[in-house]
Amino acid sequence: MTSVNSGMTAGVDVGGTKIQTVVLHDNKVVGSSRVLTPSTGKPGDVINAIVQTIGASLEQASADESALAAVGVGIPGEIDAGAGAVSLAANVPGFMDRVLLGPFVSEQLGGVKVTIDNDVRVGVLGEFRAGAGRSYKNLLGVWVGTGVGGGLVLDGKLHDGQGAAGEIGHTVVNPRGLKCSCGRRGHLEAYAGRAQMELRARRLVSRGQTTSLLKIMKRRGRTRLTSGTYARAIATGDPMAMKLIREAAWALGIAIASAQNLLDLEAIIVGGGLGDRLGQPFIDRIVKEMTPYLFVPDRPPAVLRTELGDLSGAVGAAMLVGGYPSALPV
Amino acid sequence: MTSVNSGMTAGVDVGGTKIQTVVLHDNKVVGSSRVLTPSTGKPGDVINAIVQTIGASLEQASADESALAAVGVGIPGEIDAGAGAVSLAANVPGFMDRVLLGPFVSEQLGGVKVTIDNDVRVGVLGEFRAGAGRSYKNLLGVWVGTGVGGGLVLDGKLHDGQGAAGEIGHTVVNPRGLKCSCGRRGHLEAYAGRAQMELRARRLVSRGQTTSLLKIMKRRGRTRLTSGTYARAIATGDPMAMKLIREAAWALGIAIASAQNLLDLEAIIVGGGLGDRLGQPFIDRIVKEMTPYLFVPDRPPAVLRTELGDLSGAVGAAMLVGGYPSALPV
Repeated sequence: MTSVNSGMTAGVDVGGTKIQTVVLHDNKVVGSSRVLTPSTGKPGDVINAIVQTIGASLEQASADESALAAVGVGIPGEIDAGAGAVSLAANVPGFMDRVLLGPFVSEQLGGVKVTIDNDVRVGVLGEFRAGAGRSYKNLLGVWVGTGVGGGLVLDGKLHDGQGAAGEIGHTVVNPRGLKCSCGRRGHLEAYAGRAQMELRARRLVSRGQTTSLLKIMKRRGRTRLTSGTYARAIATGDPMAMKLIREAAWALGIAIASAQNLLDLEAIIVGGGLGDRLGQPFIDRIVKEMTPYLFVPDRPPAVLRTELGDLSGAVGAAMLVGGYPSALPV
Repeated sequence: MTSVNSGMTAGVDVGGTKIQTVVLHDNKVVGSSRVLTPSTGKPGDVINAIVQTIGASLEQASADESALAAVGVGIPGEIDAGAGAVSLAANVPGFMDRVLLGPFVSEQLGGVKVTIDNDVRVGVLGEFRAGAGRSYKNLLGVWVGTGVGGGLVLDGKLHDGQGAAGEIGHTVVNPRGLKCSCGRRGHLEAYAGRAQMELRARRLVSRGQTTSLLKIMKRRGRTRLTSGTYARAIATGDPMAMKLIREAAWALGIAIASAQNLLDLEAIIVGGGLGDRLGQPFIDRIVKEMTPYLFVPDRPPAVLRTELGDLSGAVGAAMLVGGYPSALPV
């Protein structure tokens, strides 16, 4: 584990709805802060919010910027770690085009080193280093949210292949099945990603099927079927919600079994909005679906919930090491 | 690459029908020898045959046992590398029970260090170090034979997880599909392993379908549908053979796409009896089936035939390093 003896490190998890920051000292959370993600569409406002949450977290730890040794930021989208840049972060207002996030955050914090990485990868890193995965060296994190992301730890290191390893969401679970958000057929994400699940729900409703999902969504002032919406609908026994979640667990079980048979892992950690919100009953169902497909059933992987919950990303980001070229482009 | 400057290394590939040995010097093949696997059912006869092929290979290289620095042996079955033992090698007569192969070979060769490993893993190692994979650091070897085995090279090293990594044959390609030799449903090996393909062929024939497969098999004095039998039947346009091979390529394409999407590899090497015998047209068909399922289609993996062919295993075995406890158990 990375040990920071002098100074503190801040970790920031930038999502479509909120920005969560923690400050670590000796690998312990000594401060944290959370704000809603600015929806102005200006990248500068998001960067200011990041800097403010770092300041607030430091204050909670009775420290200031001078105590900051390094900053890590997790954000969805395509990461250019060398340049500290992110692009195609469709859910973060203003981050569709390329933004030099690392350099800009660094500039506002007196030149401190800033490392950025993908939100799912930092979430898995957080659980691996400080959460449910800390006693394992080979694990797969499966983050079930709007899409299904993943992160692979092999021999104690985050494995990124040529940059895109860990994408368990694009495992083929049913070759002639539903269409995935990436356009291909039968991938896991077509069954277990919230965006594709919502498309299915709306299609079923337009064909005359009934569900409390959309009513619960509207009552809570949401425009999307969130993980909480599913949890509430399932609690009332809504058949469509139960069917969608059952099929998500089925697809997750198959994809995880294939990954397990190929990689012989010690543990699978199921996180993300849907994973965290639906909790142990969801995990149990995934295990039930996975088991019949395991090649070595007498040595199944431990299938675990996250321990850090919605702090996984921020804690993992604080544990990033590295940096970007220090010279700011003009 | 392991460089042996002083002395030679021998590599032995022990299969159900033949034992292939090579001797390497400075990573070049300087001698080779092949015999039929003794079918007496006595492990000692197989061990004698191994030692004889090593002697014959050394003789070809104008050398003798004194030049031998190390020996590697690849063999199917369950490997206990530490003890140099193998068990459950069902295809090798006399090797169903545990055999202390490493120590016995070593004893007959004046105590030279002997390392053993799984036949598929050494085949993939051979191609990775000295064959089609030598310019890559992240690759998957898919060995299509009686079953479908595999070997995974990540960051330039053979990755074995908890001992069973690389088993691409047990990827789920069709959750409600055919039964695999391992008992589970819809695995790749159920479609692309020769043993399961033969069961299907015989079942179809017993239901009244016709094929030249069994006739070709009998004419050539075989009792099993070998890779050569399929190649000959396809050359005559036999519909059942073509259907079985088409479905094998379909299943391989899906399993390889899922592995690629998860691991972001540079190359896939397709070997084994069926892979080597059916050659480029088979590879082309696998690529055609794989492509529609790729998550990053503009950066597909190179899908390659083996370069060393049926020498992959022996060359890879010669490149094994390690050993077993030197004291022979009483």
